[in-house]
Amino acid sequence: MIDAEYIRDTVIQNDSKIILLVVDGLGGIPSDSTKLSELQTANTPNIDQLAKSSSCGLTLPVAPGITPGSGPGHLALFGYDPLKYYIGRGALEGLGIGIDLLPGDLAARGNFCSLDPLGNLHDRRAGRIRTELSRPIVETLNSIEIPSCTTDVFQVQDYRFVLRMRGNELSEHIGETDPQQTGIPPLECLSLQPGGGPTANYVNRFINEAKDLLANEPIANMVLLRGWSQLPDLPSFPQTYKMRSSAIAAYPMYRGLATVAGMNIIPTGATFADEIETLKEHYDASDFFFLHYKPADAAGEDGDFEAKVKTLEELDKFIPDILSLNPTVLAIAGDHSTPAVLASHSWHPVPLLIHSKWTLGDRNEGFNEYDCRFGSLGTFEAKYLMSLILAHSERLTKYGP
Amino acid sequence: MIDAEYIRDTVIQNDSKIILLVVDGLGGIPSDSTKLSELQTANTPNIDQLAKSSSCGLTLPVAPGITPGSGPGHLALFGYDPLKYYIGRGALEGLGIGIDLLPGDLAARGNFCSLDPLGNLHDRRAGRIRTELSRPIVETLNSIEIPSCTTDVFQVQDYRFVLRMRGNELSEHIGETDPQQTGIPPLECLSLQPGGGPTANYVNRFINEAKDLLANEPIANMVLLRGWSQLPDLPSFPQTYKMRSSAIAAYPMYRGLATVAGMNIIPTGATFADEIETLKEHYDASDFFFLHYKPADAAGEDGDFEAKVKTLEELDKFIPDILSLNPTVLAIAGDHSTPAVLASHSWHPVPLLIHSKWTLGDRNEGFNEYDCRFGSLGTFEAKYLMSLILAHSERLTKYGP
Repeated sequence: MIDAEYIRDTVIQNDSKIILLVVDGLGGIPSDSTKLSELQTANTPNIDQLAKSSSCGLTLPVAPGITPGSGPGHLALFGYDPLKYYIGRGALEGLGIGIDLLPGDLAARGNFCSLDPLGNLHDRRAGRIRTELSRPIVETLNSIEIPSCTTDVFQVQDYRFVLRMRGNELSEHIGETDPQQTGIPPLECLSLQPGGGPTANYVNRFINEAKDLLANEPIANMVLLRGWSQLPDLPSFPQTYKMRSSAIAAYPMYRGLATVAGMNIIPTGATFADEIETLKEHYDASDFFFLHYKPADAAGEDGDFEAKVKTLEELDKFIPDILSLNPTVLAIAGDHSTPAVLASHSWHPVPLLIHSKWTLGDRNEGFNEYDCRFGSLGTFEAKYLMSLILAHSERLTKYGP
Repeated sequence: MIDAEYIRDTVIQNDSKIILLVVDGLGGIPSDSTKLSELQTANTPNIDQLAKSSSCGLTLPVAPGITPGSGPGHLALFGYDPLKYYIGRGALEGLGIGIDLLPGDLAARGNFCSLDPLGNLHDRRAGRIRTELSRPIVETLNSIEIPSCTTDVFQVQDYRFVLRMRGNELSEHIGETDPQQTGIPPLECLSLQPGGGPTANYVNRFINEAKDLLANEPIANMVLLRGWSQLPDLPSFPQTYKMRSSAIAAYPMYRGLATVAGMNIIPTGATFADEIETLKEHYDASDFFFLHYKPADAAGEDGDFEAKVKTLEELDKFIPDILSLNPTVLAIAGDHSTPAVLASHSWHPVPLLIHSKWTLGDRNEGFNEYDCRFGSLGTFEAKYLMSLILAHSERLTKYGP
């Protein structure tokens, strides 16, 4: 793990190149009809061939039975203990839309909502007001100025936004203002721990100004704020592992997670083909590349088994491109499983392969949940993946004499 | 783990006999040409037969990806958490040449080095001066006397020695004097933590006396000291496990590690055949025997695949001798892998078998990295091995009512 002395003290530098390909939502479970998982169903000759000269296993993102969000799923792959480092909802939502979050900044997920004339909530989502209609209201909120604290509101989609507060000694230990029911007024923001008082005051001041500014709005005449969070203070990935470390990801959330880990972000396009081009162009400039593939998760979340199979087959076509770079280590991992059968993230262990000159195959038939179960890497907590990757790139010396 | 209450409180005594055979550097990886590891290649009919009536598995010496030194590798097999208990370089080097180290003693690895007339280092290893030539210089250093601290210098080989300091309240938190480069003078020894001042003063006094005494030496006219360490305060192995516990090891380092754990050392000869004779002669006098087999590691470190195969075949011939003693439990384990392909210790999980009347085989074909992957013991941290051994010898009662 990244903050364990036993690994920090053994990291050395060399000229190896590492590619960590994270296939979002990689793992699946068998479909009821065929008894085959998405990976078992997909025609992925390149990955299967690669697996035959790799070491395989399964990663547990957090712990048995625990279904991770994207935050813990990625932090674990980067070597952070996901039970120690936590990125809260507001901060993750902010990363997801690509806003700039600095240490100490406080972020919340915001909803526009509707109050009745008595001031009671009658719609917690303001009729799911659409983006075009909420955009000018977001701009209105950005006119709010509070002494000693800068507030910025960023549109997400429809009735949702992110509030970022920047100031001295802000605290995330403050209460949510969404009472989670209608017929009563929004809650005042309360301090939940000693030291939270000033922050709660800033929030209440913001809310009161927002209420005044939005008083004449026909639907979205108030805001609800929840998921207060600040970024955790993560040890730096590139400093700990002594590698120039870059992220190539088409989606802002994953760039955001890499930023929090201290990685360099290489701008890229909207597709995985763009990411591969970016990787090739910038291959000399980094030692470690976090390459993110999103479509598998999206199809899994949609509950579309066939679509997820297709995303894996699409990915397979890019494997020769990646291998043509001849990386010292190529690892293919997932941040969590997203079985189409469940149409959501799940707790299932996630297939993993590590390819290097020290891996000769595990006598497996291919790369899937079944074969990986019998792989030489076994089933282990994802937070140890980076140790294994570094070992295979000969970037770790002995622990202890 | 040895210091976990859950195990201490459940240990009971009986008349069972346990042999833990540690095959140093046991694990390997397949050769590129045959795709078979050293264990898979070796003709080891006795061990393979034994495995068929044993429970098998793989041990992780420290954590996934971590390559252990001999110290952590053995401490883990003895049940100590290798991340909690650490034996530093100086102390391990001392154990390796069989010197007497007591709690509180401070040990350093020493080099003879060469200073130019201006006092700058021009050779950190004094031309790798040979043992015959350095022996009298070691004797010269042993004439040094410092008030309140006894210093003893022990020859290792060529330009290397161990300095042992014995005194009150010595601290290992002092700086190394080797600047790791030439063209500058050796470093003064500094205190690195509060309380280290007196120890640093002793060291500097020793160094100054050494410099004076060696001033007229043609090559080895100065010393460099590093790897300061004291023995960790280990819970006693025989007391914790309530067993008369003995070590039989031809090499001093492993006798030293057993001593640190509180085991009794039975003198033996230079070969494994000698060790087996010693085991037979003293079999009645102990409940637990740590038996160490070194040649596999040595051949692996040499990168000699065929030689490592032969060491395993040699070992196999002794298995009937060991079984003829009819131990209640025979465990065959390794402190780490030393794949000949890597010519060094490695991070790979290590094959393990436990044989007792409660083990009936895991449907495996033999004893090797591949079959053990599918064994009933699974892959687990080596620090839990002693619990499993005690369980199979019925020396553990229930944890909790």
